[in-house]
Amino acid sequence: MSLTVVGSIAFDSVRTPFGERERMLGGSAVHFALAASFFSDVHVVGPVGDDFADEHVDLLRSRGVAVDDIEHIAGGRTFFWRGHYEIDMNLAHTDDTQLGVFADFEPKLSEESRSADVLFLGNIQPDLQRRVRGQCAARLAALDSMNLWIETTRDSLIEALREVDCALLNDSEVRMLTEEPNLARAARKVMELGPRIVVAKRGEYGAVLFTPDAFFALPGFLLEDVRDPTGAGDSFAGGFLGYLDMQGMAALSDGALRRAVAYGSVLASFNVEEFGTERVARLTEDEISERYEALRTMTHFEVG
Amino acid sequence: MSLTVVGSIAFDSVRTPFGERERMLGGSAVHFALAASFFSDVHVVGPVGDDFADEHVDLLRSRGVAVDDIEHIAGGRTFFWRGHYEIDMNLAHTDDTQLGVFADFEPKLSEESRSADVLFLGNIQPDLQRRVRGQCAARLAALDSMNLWIETTRDSLIEALREVDCALLNDSEVRMLTEEPNLARAARKVMELGPRIVVAKRGEYGAVLFTPDAFFALPGFLLEDVRDPTGAGDSFAGGFLGYLDMQGMAALSDGALRRAVAYGSVLASFNVEEFGTERVARLTEDEISERYEALRTMTHFEVG
Repeated sequence: MSLTVVGSIAFDSVRTPFGERERMLGGSAVHFALAASFFSDVHVVGPVGDDFADEHVDLLRSRGVAVDDIEHIAGGRTFFWRGHYEIDMNLAHTDDTQLGVFADFEPKLSEESRSADVLFLGNIQPDLQRRVRGQCAARLAALDSMNLWIETTRDSLIEALREVDCALLNDSEVRMLTEEPNLARAARKVMELGPRIVVAKRGEYGAVLFTPDAFFALPGFLLEDVRDPTGAGDSFAGGFLGYLDMQGMAALSDGALRRAVAYGSVLASFNVEEFGTERVARLTEDEISERYEALRTMTHFEVG
Repeated sequence: MSLTVVGSIAFDSVRTPFGERERMLGGSAVHFALAASFFSDVHVVGPVGDDFADEHVDLLRSRGVAVDDIEHIAGGRTFFWRGHYEIDMNLAHTDDTQLGVFADFEPKLSEESRSADVLFLGNIQPDLQRRVRGQCAARLAALDSMNLWIETTRDSLIEALREVDCALLNDSEVRMLTEEPNLARAARKVMELGPRIVVAKRGEYGAVLFTPDAFFALPGFLLEDVRDPTGAGDSFAGGFLGYLDMQGMAALSDGALRRAVAYGSVLASFNVEEFGTERVARLTEDEISERYEALRTMTHFEVG
């Protein structure tokens, strides 16, 4: 079992009502890889620039993540995002985005990354997602996307969706992509584009899983401290796909998919408790198991 | 076991992306009473005007609701609300509100209404809620409110909260009332004002129950057809308190409260499927049981 992720490896400068950080290690591939590392062997694919030091991947290495396919682009700058959150932390305000080395990134996967069982195409330009998909034989491929790509590269995104088994999108993006206001109907329309599994992420409100046969809705784990939501969606995807990879390919049963959503939710809940990767960096397997059970307790009710 | 509700008995004119209706029977007391009538004996308290004909309460009567405390105010007009919803049906846009007979309403409860076990103070001016509370010996009293009263009669609302056991509010109102952006913390602050049970309603995202010892989160039942959300919160309250009344006062266990939230959610889900009271008017107990089980299936996941 192994898992490849392509996505941004970034420096994030973030301000929330609870503090701020300058140039933290972040990006979709980083948040995803850290979360997935509790379940599977993870390979990260993505570019970094001259401002990226070897020590920046120490955290990934310490979690056993393979960093050989993090490509150093000489003369380039690492992807940079600056954003802030107001009191309603479901909404990120972007103040600056510098694509840097991502502008001309041409992904080349190593043999190890190519032969992974599971592939996650983080939120990057959909043609780039397709070029990675084409190199990887993964039996389970998933993608994330965002409003920017729905608006600017819609046709490419629809092509990319054809080539994956699973779409992990925010609920507003599921609606926007399909121009259908009802989430359940919108998710069916996404399925008609290709993916047989659609997960609609709802921020603090949790997530909904749609498959051809069933749906499953889970509220977000209730927290008293939410300090920085950046990366929560990627941590969710990491927990979700990491768990599925750990279960093996035979495990795409309804029950396994539901448990995967719950693990995704657990990882996302830790992600938001502190800034950037701070909380997940010192997370333990016991804490994950404990919160998984707390989430079950929080959502359980008996027959009527 | 019996249940008294005070609240608006109204004519609602509503437009949504799926149609419109003129002067439908509505109001918080009506939606609440219909939902609660599947579980308990319900008494409705509230004023109506000359434009309100006896036939308008036929629906309530057909569900066994006691309508003796619906007071006809000679020369008055029934409460009227006109509103519409855009594609995001979580948000109601009010176009017109005419208080009519509600402006000078002085509640007088009959002996039957006074002696109910459970009391629901629907979303009306908090001093009016307190005058009803003072007349009713109910061992379980709950209230709803809204942003208008938080903004204009905050002190009265806080007094009203002191006198009830349970607050049923939208999550945004829980935050606004306490000036605390985190829902879990905000709910604790509401508890400090009096109620030992707080239910935060989240529209399509479901509801969260807070008690001194636990919390329980439930996503909304996923529907492919949502035509008119008007009254959903009151139907939720009706299912929630109706079920608790049916269980008897000894039943305020954690398990019963959770099941009550689920029944509330089920009743709200039927409410929104059609306009006004149309769907609940022909609802059956079998349909309620069936959807309760569907909600359990929709939210169930196994140990990790």
